[in-house]
Amino acid sequence: MTTMVGALAIRASLAEPLGCVTDLPPLRDAALPGWTDLVFGGHDISMLRLCKKAHSLVGAGVLPAPIVEAVAGELDQIERHLRPAPAGRNQAETIQQTVADLRAFREQHDLERVVVVNVSSTEPLIVAHPAHESLAALDAALPVADVLPASSLYAYAAFTAGCSFVDFTPSTGARLPALAELARRVGTPFAGSDGKTGETLLKSVLAPMFAMRNLRVRSWSGLNLLGGGDGANLAQPEANAAKVASKQRVLKETLGYEPEGQTRIDYVPDIGDLKTAWDLITFSGFLGSRMRLEFTWHGCDSALAAPLVLDLARLTAGAHEQGTAGPMPQLAFFFKDPIGEVSHSLADQWHDLVDWVTGWTDDPS
Amino acid sequence: MTTMVGALAIRASLAEPLGCVTDLPPLRDAALPGWTDLVFGGHDISMLRLCKKAHSLVGAGVLPAPIVEAVAGELDQIERHLRPAPAGRNQAETIQQTVADLRAFREQHDLERVVVVNVSSTEPLIVAHPAHESLAALDAALPVADVLPASSLYAYAAFTAGCSFVDFTPSTGARLPALAELARRVGTPFAGSDGKTGETLLKSVLAPMFAMRNLRVRSWSGLNLLGGGDGANLAQPEANAAKVASKQRVLKETLGYEPEGQTRIDYVPDIGDLKTAWDLITFSGFLGSRMRLEFTWHGCDSALAAPLVLDLARLTAGAHEQGTAGPMPQLAFFFKDPIGEVSHSLADQWHDLVDWVTGWTDDPS
Amino acid sequence: MTTMVGALAIRASLAEPLGCVTDLPPLRDAALPGWTDLVFGGHDISMLRLCKKAHSLVGAGVLPAPIVEAVAGELDQIERHLRPAPAGRNQAETIQQTVADLRAFREQHDLERVVVVNVSSTEPLIVAHPAHESLAALDAALPVADVLPASSLYAYAAFTAGCSFVDFTPSTGARLPALAELARRVGTPFAGSDGKTGETLLKSVLAPMFAMRNLRVRSWSGLNLLGGGDGANLAQPEANAAKVASKQRVLKETLGYEPEGQTRIDYVPDIGDLKTAWDLITFSGFLGSRMRLEFTWHGCDSALAAPLVLDLARLTAGAHEQGTAGPMPQLAFFFKDPIGEVSHSLADQWHDLVDWVTGWTDDPS
Amino acid sequence: MTTMVGALAIRASLAEPLGCVTDLPPLRDAALPGWTDLVFGGHDISMLRLCKKAHSLVGAGVLPAPIVEAVAGELDQIERHLRPAPAGRNQAETIQQTVADLRAFREQHDLERVVVVNVSSTEPLIVAHPAHESLAALDAALPVADVLPASSLYAYAAFTAGCSFVDFTPSTGARLPALAELARRVGTPFAGSDGKTGETLLKSVLAPMFAMRNLRVRSWSGLNLLGGGDGANLAQPEANAAKVASKQRVLKETLGYEPEGQTRIDYVPDIGDLKTAWDLITFSGFLGSRMRLEFTWHGCDSALAAPLVLDLARLTAGAHEQGTAGPMPQLAFFFKDPIGEVSHSLADQWHDLVDWVTGWTDDPS
Ligand SMILES: NC(=O)c1ccc[n+]([C@@H]2O[C@H](COP(=O)([O-])OP(=O)(O)OC[C@H]3O[C@@H](n4cnc5c(N)ncnc54)[C@H](O)[C@@H]3O)[C@@H](O)[C@H]2O)c1
Ligand SMILES: NC(=O)c1ccc[n+]([C@@H]2O[C@H](COP(=O)([O-])OP(=O)(O)OC[C@H]3O[C@@H](n4cnc5c(N)ncnc54)[C@H](O)[C@@H]3O)[C@@H](O)[C@H]2O)c1
Ligand SMILES: NC(=O)c1ccc[n+]([C@@H]2O[C@H](COP(=O)([O-])OP(=O)(O)OC[C@H]3O[C@@H](n4cnc5c(N)ncnc54)[C@H](O)[C@@H]3O)[C@@H](O)[C@H]2O)c1
Ligand SMILES: NC(=O)c1ccc[n+]([C@@H]2O[C@H](COP(=O)([O-])OP(=O)(O)OC[C@H]3O[C@@H](n4cnc5c(N)ncnc54)[C@H](O)[C@@H]3O)[C@@H](O)[C@H]2O)c1
Ligand code: NA
Ligand code: NA
Repeated sequence: MTTMVGALAIRASLAEPLGCVTDLPPLRDAALPGWTDLVFGGHDISMLRLCKKAHSLVGAGVLPAPIVEAVAGELDQIERHLRPAPAGRNQAETIQQTVADLRAFREQHDLERVVVVNVSSTEPLIVAHPAHESLAALDAALPVADVLPASSLYAYAAFTAGCSFVDFTPSTGARLPALAELARRVGTPFAGSDGKTGETLLKSVLAPMFAMRNLRVRSWSGLNLLGGGDGANLAQPEANAAKVASKQRVLKETLGYEPEGQTRIDYVPDIGDLKTAWDLITFSGFLGSRMRLEFTWHGCDSALAAPLVLDLARLTAGAHEQGTAGPMPQLAFFFKDPIGEVSHSLADQWHDLVDWVTGWTDDPS
Repeated sequence: MTTMVGALAIRASLAEPLGCVTDLPPLRDAALPGWTDLVFGGHDISMLRLCKKAHSLVGAGVLPAPIVEAVAGELDQIERHLRPAPAGRNQAETIQQTVADLRAFREQHDLERVVVVNVSSTEPLIVAHPAHESLAALDAALPVADVLPASSLYAYAAFTAGCSFVDFTPSTGARLPALAELARRVGTPFAGSDGKTGETLLKSVLAPMFAMRNLRVRSWSGLNLLGGGDGANLAQPEANAAKVASKQRVLKETLGYEPEGQTRIDYVPDIGDLKTAWDLITFSGFLGSRMRLEFTWHGCDSALAAPLVLDLARLTAGAHEQGTAGPMPQLAFFFKDPIGEVSHSLADQWHDLVDWVTGWTDDPS
Repeated sequence: MTTMVGALAIRASLAEPLGCVTDLPPLRDAALPGWTDLVFGGHDISMLRLCKKAHSLVGAGVLPAPIVEAVAGELDQIERHLRPAPAGRNQAETIQQTVADLRAFREQHDLERVVVVNVSSTEPLIVAHPAHESLAALDAALPVADVLPASSLYAYAAFTAGCSFVDFTPSTGARLPALAELARRVGTPFAGSDGKTGETLLKSVLAPMFAMRNLRVRSWSGLNLLGGGDGANLAQPEANAAKVASKQRVLKETLGYEPEGQTRIDYVPDIGDLKTAWDLITFSGFLGSRMRLEFTWHGCDSALAAPLVLDLARLTAGAHEQGTAGPMPQLAFFFKDPIGEVSHSLADQWHDLVDWVTGWTDDPS
Repeated sequence: MTTMVGALAIRASLAEPLGCVTDLPPLRDAALPGWTDLVFGGHDISMLRLCKKAHSLVGAGVLPAPIVEAVAGELDQIERHLRPAPAGRNQAETIQQTVADLRAFREQHDLERVVVVNVSSTEPLIVAHPAHESLAALDAALPVADVLPASSLYAYAAFTAGCSFVDFTPSTGARLPALAELARRVGTPFAGSDGKTGETLLKSVLAPMFAMRNLRVRSWSGLNLLGGGDGANLAQPEANAAKVASKQRVLKETLGYEPEGQTRIDYVPDIGDLKTAWDLITFSGFLGSRMRLEFTWHGCDSALAAPLVLDLARLTAGAHEQGTAGPMPQLAFFFKDPIGEVSHSLADQWHDLVDWVTGWTDDPS
């Protein structure tokens, strides 16, 4: 929602693209689709009217009223391209319906390419299944058993329709051997997982700081308080576990050891979208001295996520155009739980991203 | 003090070199003098006995009692190489006495090279003087006028005696055209200024984070509370101004603009060495959303500084051996107010440091 | 501004009287003028239109748009009762003009009594003058010398016109022997000084906590960041000094000793009305153990002040009706720097307030 | 442990009684046993030598080395009065053994009275049982079924031996109708539950502040991080639930409604005894304005608890001497979950305590 309103506002020069990293000098002139080239559509299980949703976000202080009013007409246009989440008699059929929707959308708007971004509710961690291991096994299972979570059905459909896929959530999405195989076969790229917008963003600069200074992190404890739909969903133990797991990698892989302490996520409706995270880090240095760092992050979750979703759509479309297929570890900068064995240092990830994108040619064909 | 006790403890394997970056894998095997190759001496204006000082630091919880006891004998040895700060009838003479002390120290211990590290009280900002502009003008002025602050007298003496120089304080030290000229002429390197151990260390990772995410930092306000000798000295408005100035660069040069807000330093004797800094950063993102980050840093100042002093002594000796002369911007990683036009991002500074040092050859001659 | 909009909104049942202590059960049925009995007027040196001011506060997120729209008509009415601050050829004349304004306002609206509340910019601390010591000396001086700050001219005029006076600022106001003499002579009450709405409010509950638990407060340091007109004014060293002085009493008088540390106020325009205060308290307990408490207060200054201004107007009018004359230490609950030798514990002040007010009779005559 | 070392140190004038409220002026001259009148004994399930325990607390920075050395001899004396926790063949027998121990201790030291203070590990919440409802039912059940938790066995034994009982933990202790009946019958007083030393202490001053200012607390969330034996025990879900339940009352009973948010307790061994609690309170005021308060408490748990244990021993002994029997709501000042329908405002509790104690006569007989 915030993503679409924002894209329309940027396009209409009603707002600066603050928070969009593709607007920063090293990336601004890269071979990417422009703001005005983007066209929005989507699937959701709840069919609340877009304008109504936008107005409720104005009430909650998330969106500015004048901007929503200015883009209301265009929102109504987009509304016509929203579809209820497909639901076939079996998973193979659900995929086919989704593929049909994606193809129809691309044709109707005469688009060069479509990027499917998963921004739906975090799913529980899945149980491993033999059908996940190869495309052949998966194709055999889909008509007869429910072996994939919804996010992976979308990924499967995206690849089949020749669309790239970005998972902004900690859900499974394309992260199964069978789906990576499919993506490579059809030549479409994918990226994930779980947008890095708050506590983990800070960890990705603070943990390297301790490492570079040879300071031993003894414990790192955190509490995340959030309201909103995401908060309500994460109040469910299963979704909570998936999210917490996604947040874990950065410390262990950056420091080389796992400090004490854990990360908690609590649902506090009153906090709304102004998510608040408090972290306490205890560490030791020279001659065993004991020290502490605490931080409190008061961040608007949707305002932090939306510009990254736009960046990811543009970058993934660009990569697709350059002929990239399969996982894109170069987009680790955006994710809590990036694909592949990559550095978790934000600065390193930034250099990898910039090096990659600035090497693209305008006419890759 | 903490530096010497720590070096003795590391050498005797009583303590790990936590906080020493030259002990991290990418630097551990570089062409640097070893821990056991270091010999300590020094000048101070106050001649408090070392052992007494060490015991008072034990009382204050800064140094661990068993370690101080274990190295007490060696501290007594070092004590014999401490000299009162030289004071001639004019500045030329003060320099000559210092040079004589440095040469005597080098000969007595049969050392390959000596690194002079300024860790004395922060001086007030100096007033520009024509004699600072060239070595010729300076040499003409020194016998007849007091044109240099104490830190610059030490730098002059160091270079004259063929020693390298590191300024761990925001004082002027070697940062005058005349002194850079001298360093280059005699072929000795120098580094500075002002060890980066607390609030500015955090700024050097957080400000790049905001920049890389295209988030606009609107204000950055900070309060530093500290006791100890440094705190007492910084309670003086002149020294305070010098310190605050040294802390300013990182934001402006990283962000490309100067956010609102200021940094304060207050002397609170009870805080002692466990310096506490609180910073509030207000920033805005997508569609004008307003957000906040606060942090509180409870850091033992001397435990953070001492290992860096050891690192700088080893790295500067190594660079000297490699034939480096003049300013060393590659050591920006260590300083609040580094020499030259360098990146203020800690991650960038780290890569510059590692690239530089790992390129050194074991036998540079 | 916020006060008037709020009073109109409460009267029109558009908003609950949150933040108004006279709406709490023990005071709700006291012998006080009702919300609908209040009529507003005022003096200001700047004659910005009220509606314009209200709209700029909507833009700043201080006032809710629907409420301002609903009361816009009534604001225009109030506008007609605003007067530029009187300025005669000498201070005696300025007072006379103010008295005339106050009398005219009372007559025009047929009011039983008028309460003058000083909510103007904080003045610098004043220099003692012999004319402050007695009414006779003051009356002799006023026609020939500028011996009073503006706040005291308003107090003098209020008493002369038979109005009571409340100082919501740290300015001098009625706190001069000569003015107390005048108030007692004419039989009008007064209260002050400096509304307690943020950091000092917290001190008034936390300092007693440490005292009641026999914990020794070693240092208490604070930084207040605020924007707005008050922030800009307090960026002036003289006004800043007056404000800081007003904040000092609570600790010393509650604890019986003065801990280390100081309170700072910095002007950060971006912070706007969401004033932010950070305090660090170090304390020690059993067997010399050292502990810390930090807090961060993010409070809307005007939303905290406005309901107290309404409370004070109602309570002061009530006290006047009960025949109270001279200073009212029973209102210490509301002030940073209360009149008289009173407890600074908020809980004690609350009990004093409730005991006093619930003892009033409906028909005191 | 800290309690005993501290009492010995105070008695020997090696330490001030900081943290002891019975040393504050209004209570200092009350009719209480003196510091030197106290004699220590106890039961524990683990029989670690006292001196060893004391030395490990020195290592952890909890106890000062010189004090422990000075009182080591006396600790050895106390050691001789420690007994392993009694364990009979059934609960009736366990009680009888405990009674025997208590009587022997009183006789051996020729004491006027004994106060049993429960400072053992927090127990899980108990399941209600009909035998809890009356002394007759309980006495019938004890020889044949395990109907009481350990804390209640100690309470039963204490009363039977004519000793008073204080529960410093959230365990059940004397809080059963059958035990209150017993206490009243034998004429001994009891107090509890759960010493108020950290987050709840702050709540008991901050919640009344919001209430007195008519500010609506919308959410109150907290995270408590602690190491030590208590932390390890509270990492067990059952004990954790008991502790969290004990912390809940203050908000609901002070505010009259229950704000959103919850309190978490996490075990982080590295935090040790310097327990750290972070709380975020969101609240609203005039015209719906939204505000926030955060605090971080870094408190040495044992240093905060120990002096209160001494206070409670002295006050309970005093109350017993005055003839008090049954529950003592006047000691609510000390507890998170006080007995009876009392105010949760620390200031009110303080006044109740002082009024009560200062009314005692020196020779009550
Ligand atoms: N800063 C951020 O906002 C941020 C950062 C990282 C990750 N994420 C993740 O992004 C996701 C969205 O966050 P949000 O705050 O917008 O949550 P939200 O609860 O407001 O929105 C989720 C939407 O997904 C829809 N949905 C659920 N299941 C679906 C399905 N099977 N098919 C289609 N639609 C479905 C829901 O109806 C809802 O409209 C969450 O998984 C969250 O964890 C958000
Ligand atoms: N984390 C840190 O400790 C840190 C970080 C950055 C910079 N610094 C800087 O390092 C310096 C030392 O800090 P400190 O905490 O040890 O301070 P300190 O006050 O404890 O020690 C300073 C010492 O310098 C001596 N001195 C003063 N003038 C001298 C002179 N002309 N010649 C020789 N000695 C002289 C003093 O007698 C004193 O012993 C300060 O300038 C401080 O700002 C420290
Ligand atoms: N929470 C709070 O807002 C709070 C708490 C305690 C005290 N105060 C005090 O209340 C006062 C007002 O605060 P504010 O935030 O509204 O400030 P503000 O700067 O927004 O408003 C002050 C007003 O006073 C007017 N003024 C200045 N001198 C005057 C004079 N001689 N006669 C008449 N008007 C005059 C100015 O023109 C301005 O309109 C300040 O002194 C402040 O320190 C405010
Ligand atoms: N600030 C505080 O320290 C504080 C505040 C409030 C409440 N409390 C409560 O006080 C209690 C003690 O805290 P602590 O930090 O000393 O914990 P701890 O774990 O260090 O000590 C508990 C002791 O109780 C002993 N024990 C366990 N079961 C027993 C039994 N049945 N009989 C006799 N001894 C038994 C254990 O062996 C251990 O030595 C805990 O319940 C804690 O929740 C402590
Ligand atoms: Na904070
Ligand atoms: Na904090």
